[in-house]
Amino acid sequence: MVKKFKVDINADIGESFGNYNLGNDSELIKYVSSCNIACGFHAGDPLVMRKTVKLAKRNNVAIGAHPGLPDLMGFGRRKMDAEPKEVRDYIVYQVGALKAFTEAENVKLQHVKLHGALYVMVEYDEALAEAVAKAITEIDPELIFVTEYETIAYKVARKSGLRVVSEGAPDLRYTLNGSPAIERRKIPWNPKIVAKKAVMMVKEGRVQVTKNTYVNVKAETLCIHGDAPNAPDIAKAVKEALNREDIEVISMKGLF
Amino acid sequence: MVKKFKVDINADIGESFGNYNLGNDSELIKYVSSCNIACGFHAGDPLVMRKTVKLAKRNNVAIGAHPGLPDLMGFGRRKMDAEPKEVRDYIVYQVGALKAFTEAENVKLQHVKLHGALYVMVEYDEALAEAVAKAITEIDPELIFVTEYETIAYKVARKSGLRVVSEGAPDLRYTLNGSPAIERRKIPWNPKIVAKKAVMMVKEGRVQVTKNTYVNVKAETLCIHGDAPNAPDIAKAVKEALNREDIEVISMKGLF
Amino acid sequence: MVKKFKVDINADIGESFGNYNLGNDSELIKYVSSCNIACGFHAGDPLVMRKTVKLAKRNNVAIGAHPGLPDLMGFGRRKMDAEPKEVRDYIVYQVGALKAFTEAENVKLQHVKLHGALYVMVEYDEALAEAVAKAITEIDPELIFVTEYETIAYKVARKSGLRVVSEGAPDLRYTLNGSPAIERRKIPWNPKIVAKKAVMMVKEGRVQVTKNTYVNVKAETLCIHGDAPNAPDIAKAVKEALNREDIEVISMKGLF
Amino acid sequence: MVKKFKVDINADIGESFGNYNLGNDSELIKYVSSCNIACGFHAGDPLVMRKTVKLAKRNNVAIGAHPGLPDLMGFGRRKMDAEPKEVRDYIVYQVGALKAFTEAENVKLQHVKLHGALYVMVEYDEALAEAVAKAITEIDPELIFVTEYETIAYKVARKSGLRVVSEGAPDLRYTLNGSPAIERRKIPWNPKIVAKKAVMMVKEGRVQVTKNTYVNVKAETLCIHGDAPNAPDIAKAVKEALNREDIEVISMKGLF
Repeated sequence: MVKKFKVDINADIGESFGNYNLGNDSELIKYVSSCNIACGFHAGDPLVMRKTVKLAKRNNVAIGAHPGLPDLMGFGRRKMDAEPKEVRDYIVYQVGALKAFTEAENVKLQHVKLHGALYVMVEYDEALAEAVAKAITEIDPELIFVTEYETIAYKVARKSGLRVVSEGAPDLRYTLNGSPAIERRKIPWNPKIVAKKAVMMVKEGRVQVTKNTYVNVKAETLCIHGDAPNAPDIAKAVKEALNREDIEVISMKGLF
Repeated sequence: MVKKFKVDINADIGESFGNYNLGNDSELIKYVSSCNIACGFHAGDPLVMRKTVKLAKRNNVAIGAHPGLPDLMGFGRRKMDAEPKEVRDYIVYQVGALKAFTEAENVKLQHVKLHGALYVMVEYDEALAEAVAKAITEIDPELIFVTEYETIAYKVARKSGLRVVSEGAPDLRYTLNGSPAIERRKIPWNPKIVAKKAVMMVKEGRVQVTKNTYVNVKAETLCIHGDAPNAPDIAKAVKEALNREDIEVISMKGLF
Repeated sequence: MVKKFKVDINADIGESFGNYNLGNDSELIKYVSSCNIACGFHAGDPLVMRKTVKLAKRNNVAIGAHPGLPDLMGFGRRKMDAEPKEVRDYIVYQVGALKAFTEAENVKLQHVKLHGALYVMVEYDEALAEAVAKAITEIDPELIFVTEYETIAYKVARKSGLRVVSEGAPDLRYTLNGSPAIERRKIPWNPKIVAKKAVMMVKEGRVQVTKNTYVNVKAETLCIHGDAPNAPDIAKAVKEALNREDIEVISMKGLF
Repeated sequence: MVKKFKVDINADIGESFGNYNLGNDSELIKYVSSCNIACGFHAGDPLVMRKTVKLAKRNNVAIGAHPGLPDLMGFGRRKMDAEPKEVRDYIVYQVGALKAFTEAENVKLQHVKLHGALYVMVEYDEALAEAVAKAITEIDPELIFVTEYETIAYKVARKSGLRVVSEGAPDLRYTLNGSPAIERRKIPWNPKIVAKKAVMMVKEGRVQVTKNTYVNVKAETLCIHGDAPNAPDIAKAVKEALNREDIEVISMKGLF
């Protein structure tokens, strides 16, 4: 019997830097099918990147690049008036750097997911979205782009010929316009609540915003933020809930 | 008639950063056969890197990566106690980033030449030299490694299977031990003197150190430092002197 | 006979970084009465700061701090979603650092002028303006704050008890709303045109926007941007034009 | 009855950066009499600096500046060929910045202690030691300088007129030459062993190196490294052991 629903679980990992540890990557990685590895601008450094690529490889988790704004002090979570050509070259630089590590470790780069403020800036800005699509295509047109369903970024990437996977973030609060609210510092969420939201996203394609209000969220991949203090617990709860509901968890390349 | 001597001329370019301009790359590029492009650690940024790759392509100049220490404030010219695994990953990161730009612009990366203090640190340190050879091999075993003749770095790279090109720096003063003295801030040299040293390096394989002393310098490629105030004049004088002496100037990949 | 008009001329200087030189400070300083010294976030570094403080002292030019956003790659000219408490502490940090150099060289810090995008962000944001006023007051309530006349930043700083000096930028284009348009990379202006605008600002309190349109600009200090390629020529032309018109040029502390 | 022995306990704190937390400062601070606050080069940022100054003030712990090398990625623990004038200005910059926060919070800056590789580089280099003594004197000649007893740095600072406090590090391993071995990443130590070493340092002025070998260590202040995973436990054990031995713990300004 074929499972009716399929979904990918992705998590942001590799966000440590130098002597600073962030997140419990070796635990979190157990519950996801894809991971987004920071590339040195908002977080991550060359040693962390190699170590994280190896960790993902060992756990059979598909690897994506997670480029961000050049703002380590703000963890890439502050919007910045970067021009399209800046965004384009920031992405080529960062994804290129991570790709070198995946090639060094003989694994394939699966996707690109923008980080934090860059993710949000690009969603509804056509010029930035085109810059991103161009950057990804230049590096490798087989790379999958991850963003929210039906945003400008989604449409522009599709139009440019890229494969796009739509994302939901069950560990963030959604607003009435259907977008999640970015937290400057990730707060802990109740794993059960996140798991319940995750299941609803996959099976019903929507998320509850207020007592009686729902907004549509089409999620082919579910994001778990790695910098939440209890990120592994959340990921575990989400994965177990999906299993209970007979939803198949596969890496996003399996969706095509 | 076949020319008796062949040599490559290389220059460090792409060392601008943000609003800071350094060097006159568009003039300097006219007189060299290979260029070493900064990769964002000691100098350079993503926009500068793309612009410089395009400039080299337009001028038919072969492109190399020029990774350095993470020390923008010191322009990568201060030795730093970096460990082999750090050096290895710094190189994979930086060369990977530049390679993404060369691929985006459809040109091939020819070589890797370390910058400043990193260049010097690695020359006589076996563990660092092995780290560098591993890093380059991981990225692409076809890449040529540029260093001084018969240093430990030279031998280790050769032993690891890499092609190695030996370098001389006619715009630096050599010491009695046969090594050039790095300048924290490049001072201008008399182009005629540099040109004369360049010819002697190629034809006689040696450089004058004091009035009556010479040291051997085997140079398959001649380095012109792009941050000298008169770098283009120096490069021009060197190229013209080589032409007068019937020495063929070719990019280093042509040496094999 | 007392001169009817008085005005200060200020310039942004000390914007070099490491091996990167920006601006011709030693020439520009001759034509200004106050200078704003970069503090290491958008430009400047500790060595440049000391050198520039000494230069100002030698030329009897009053010194101000010129703190910016933590964005060296964007030269502090990209707006960034920094929170009030971040802006407050960024200013205390940077102004404190510069103050240490002025104290080391036995000169007094006269004023604070924000740089680039930070200047603009604060002008019409009450929470940010209050953060700035608090930061300056914490460091030294005698410091003068420089901003455009009657902006929210101007009013908030006045209300908090700070002395405020209003600024005009004759080397920028003004828009119909009375604000100058920031240039990411400063383009050269015709010195005569800037000088003419400067005189009109001081004597008539306005600037021409289109053929027949003027907007009011009250300028107790006139800004010359140090990173324009011809900044010294512009400053010289402005100073000479003011002299010809019998307008006294004094440092801003002389205005109180 | 007067206690026979007095000693200060100092800890490096305020080493978090942006979203990265390092150390358990609010627990560690309970057991120390002086603290060294990172100043933004090797660790720390403006918000962390203010927060840490407030924490120290609330706990009646004397505050010192803890300037380091500009190497966030290496946490200031890699030696770097910085010139004396660079070191001098790096210290003025960082200590000046921290001093602004202490003044903003109405507390007095007590001392300066260099961080990591900078600490070690300066100990036996006369030119660097003079640069440091000059920098501290420029900022405030009343500041106490902390270093190891009878090093060149110690003597130079004394000769220049500064008050100097000698330091021992019971949570580091000492080598036969009497110096502690810096750890790139602080490993956890057994609190009891550190406490025993601390007591021996204070009462006997020596530390055990091998089974039968001791080296002299004169420690007027004992350092607890804040980035050890169990730093608060270590500090607590040290403080309790000192109390049991009737050794008075006072901030270093009380030693003069």
